[in-house]
Amino acid sequence: MNHPADHLTAAIDKVGNPACVGLDPVLERLPASCLAEARPVDAIQRFCLGVLDAISGHVGVCKIQSACFERFGAAGVEVLDVLCARAREVGLQVILDYKRGDIGISAEHYAASARERCDWVTVNPYLGVDGIAPFVAEDRLGAFALVRTSNPGGDAIQSNRLEDGRTVAQSVADLVAEHGEKSLGLCGYSALGAVVGATKRKDAEELRRRMPRQIFLVPGFGAQGGGVDDVLPCFNSDGTGAIITASRSVLYAFETEDPVWQSGVERAARELGDSLAKGMGTR
Amino acid sequence: MNHPADHLTAAIDKVGNPACVGLDPVLERLPASCLAEARPVDAIQRFCLGVLDAISGHVGVCKIQSACFERFGAAGVEVLDVLCARAREVGLQVILDYKRGDIGISAEHYAASARERCDWVTVNPYLGVDGIAPFVAEDRLGAFALVRTSNPGGDAIQSNRLEDGRTVAQSVADLVAEHGEKSLGLCGYSALGAVVGATKRKDAEELRRRMPRQIFLVPGFGAQGGGVDDVLPCFNSDGTGAIITASRSVLYAFETEDPVWQSGVERAARELGDSLAKGMGTR
Repeated sequence: MNHPADHLTAAIDKVGNPACVGLDPVLERLPASCLAEARPVDAIQRFCLGVLDAISGHVGVCKIQSACFERFGAAGVEVLDVLCARAREVGLQVILDYKRGDIGISAEHYAASARERCDWVTVNPYLGVDGIAPFVAEDRLGAFALVRTSNPGGDAIQSNRLEDGRTVAQSVADLVAEHGEKSLGLCGYSALGAVVGATKRKDAEELRRRMPRQIFLVPGFGAQGGGVDDVLPCFNSDGTGAIITASRSVLYAFETEDPVWQSGVERAARELGDSLAKGMGTR
Repeated sequence: MNHPADHLTAAIDKVGNPACVGLDPVLERLPASCLAEARPVDAIQRFCLGVLDAISGHVGVCKIQSACFERFGAAGVEVLDVLCARAREVGLQVILDYKRGDIGISAEHYAASARERCDWVTVNPYLGVDGIAPFVAEDRLGAFALVRTSNPGGDAIQSNRLEDGRTVAQSVADLVAEHGEKSLGLCGYSALGAVVGATKRKDAEELRRRMPRQIFLVPGFGAQGGGVDDVLPCFNSDGTGAIITASRSVLYAFETEDPVWQSGVERAARELGDSLAKGMGTR
């Protein structure tokens, strides 16, 4: 077993829930103890290392937002590398959320550097298969293509209807499903997955139907008030095929002054996992 | 005058041509003298510094492909910073070609770090205005949104026709034109520009009509055998409004063993500028 979808499925099975914790730290919300570090980027590193330790064992997957680290230039990229390495050490699958979308040698560069760091990445489909294929070419890296994002502005592109009746997002879904057929793991899922925002139940149902072999990466759980019911249509009928990401509700589950702030994060990660496991069980 | 479009227009006016040299170095094609450096990333830095010196004065703009540097992790990002700084020192406008597309705080992070480094960036429009607005919000950075890319795979998304008769690329163009109205410089152009591949003459004409206030960034000149005639539809009728990028035809205009390889690059940059200036003059 050496396929990105098999590794991801195994990580989910091991903890018994499809939860993913998103690491997108902002300086303003860190615990006071972390802010004692000399540089902002060191404070962020210390915080994120503490979060990784706290969530390990409770969830199987983390998603690291590249922008939060790139913000600090080369020093931030070093921290990103440290965190990716530590996350894998503590048994977490690592999704690098960097939404790259380029072609040819540039895409190959992005893919090559990701393969050294993480298990999955997010990619942008606007350049078509040329911008996606290089990331999953060798079945050594998984990639979630942005299909349907949950931000309001995304509608102006993704909800537009084509003359054949499909929305733009649905046409991207079909392209992802077709290309993903080339990279199936033993688990039946593809190394090419899809980012699907859990905004509208009907959208998710339709996209699930079009992409049976794609693992869905579903962002924004908790933050926008949605519950387990809202994300159920993102799963296949056997309860597999989606990862549900929560970020702020876990990351900042502590009082800033609490010296044992990690317990809050750990508890929130456990509750996230439990609520999703329970939600799936009652389906 | 402190608007990205005014700065860019002034740089073009100063050299008298709309040429841009793309820096997307690959190790395999560097001069032997550069390869004497200890690390690959140092060889690339030495080569690119030599290129910047050689092209300065002949063209007003350079476009740096972020992937070629990110490939080397934190060390590559350091080199990227060195090159951006040097390019500005020698009077070049710097476009950082990193095709980011994210929203909210992540987009703000990307924009903030770009503002410290370069003059313009490239951005991906698949997330709608949410993924574009943060980059041009303060009129301190310009952004070229990918509207029509020249790669064959782009057609599967961008050429799809909507039920209102527009292609997806045209709908993106309309969105870019509308949002760009908020950020006009004294020159009449917006801080929000558009990447338009020079593949099909008719496409370019139609997009020019829809985006009169956008500066077009036109990649791939020379490499795909196109000439000045092919890019003329990207300009407005007064001969302004587009930047034409060539990369390999300038970067590698030397024999690998030539110790004065920079003269070849300089000559190629001068010829690129001259041919575009001449082409514009005869329009």
